[in-house]
Amino acid sequence: MVKLTPAQRKLIEEPNLAHVATLMKDGSPQVTPVWVDCDDTHILINTAEGRQKPRNLERDPRIALSIAAQEDQQMYIQVRGRVVEITTEGAFDHISKLGRKYFGPDFVYPKRDGETRIIIRIEPEHVTGRA
Amino acid sequence: MVKLTPAQRKLIEEPNLAHVATLMKDGSPQVTPVWVDCDDTHILINTAEGRQKPRNLERDPRIALSIAAQEDQQMYIQVRGRVVEITTEGAFDHISKLGRKYFGPDFVYPKRDGETRIIIRIEPEHVTGRA
Repeated sequence: MVKLTPAQRKLIEEPNLAHVATLMKDGSPQVTPVWVDCDDTHILINTAEGRQKPRNLERDPRIALSIAAQEDQQMYIQVRGRVVEITTEGAFDHISKLGRKYFGPDFVYPKRDGETRIIIRIEPEHVTGRA
Repeated sequence: MVKLTPAQRKLIEEPNLAHVATLMKDGSPQVTPVWVDCDDTHILINTAEGRQKPRNLERDPRIALSIAAQEDQQMYIQVRGRVVEITTEGAFDHISKLGRKYFGPDFVYPKRDGETRIIIRIEPEHVTGRA
């Protein structure tokens, strides 16, 4: 496990997308853009039950992320790591907070029937880039 | 192999970064931001000999890309595919053209001693998103 530097955290805390790679059942890679967040130790993303990403991560917790600054695409980080927790706890509040980060303080994340949000907690193991 | 729609091509032709996932030797994913381009049938990226991405792709040609629009991060495509060619032919001209796409018509890509550029040609097999 590696600790993110303040500059790397800043890139994550600003409203930049993370492009997250997981492994399909046959071992091939899949990448999708997602909202991203971090705390003192982990990188957090938020998805919904039943989607491809959590299905892939339950099978194989190895994950990679790439984040470039919206304001200056030359600034980026790339992370390889491992999912250490997948939880529904606090996940709707978390996606609402992410919605406000990306769309502004008035944004209200819609409640969708039958959608269960989940937080994916990622332990970074290898971080490089220019941040 | 699938054909890109005009809207998907437009997203690639504008100066948006692609986040490209390849597989490390142990099968774990790696993602990095790269410049991207396409022609009528394939998606093209450009890297240099000896880097992690071409080393990974020579071992396993399975690749995935995610591209979000710089102007509107809600617009994106995600691609799963396969590398069908890795070539040095025309690769310096190609990186120079990409440099002008991302940095404007006056940009001159620097010649670096000992750097051999390569074009990686990707056949898209599965394309989704909102473009």
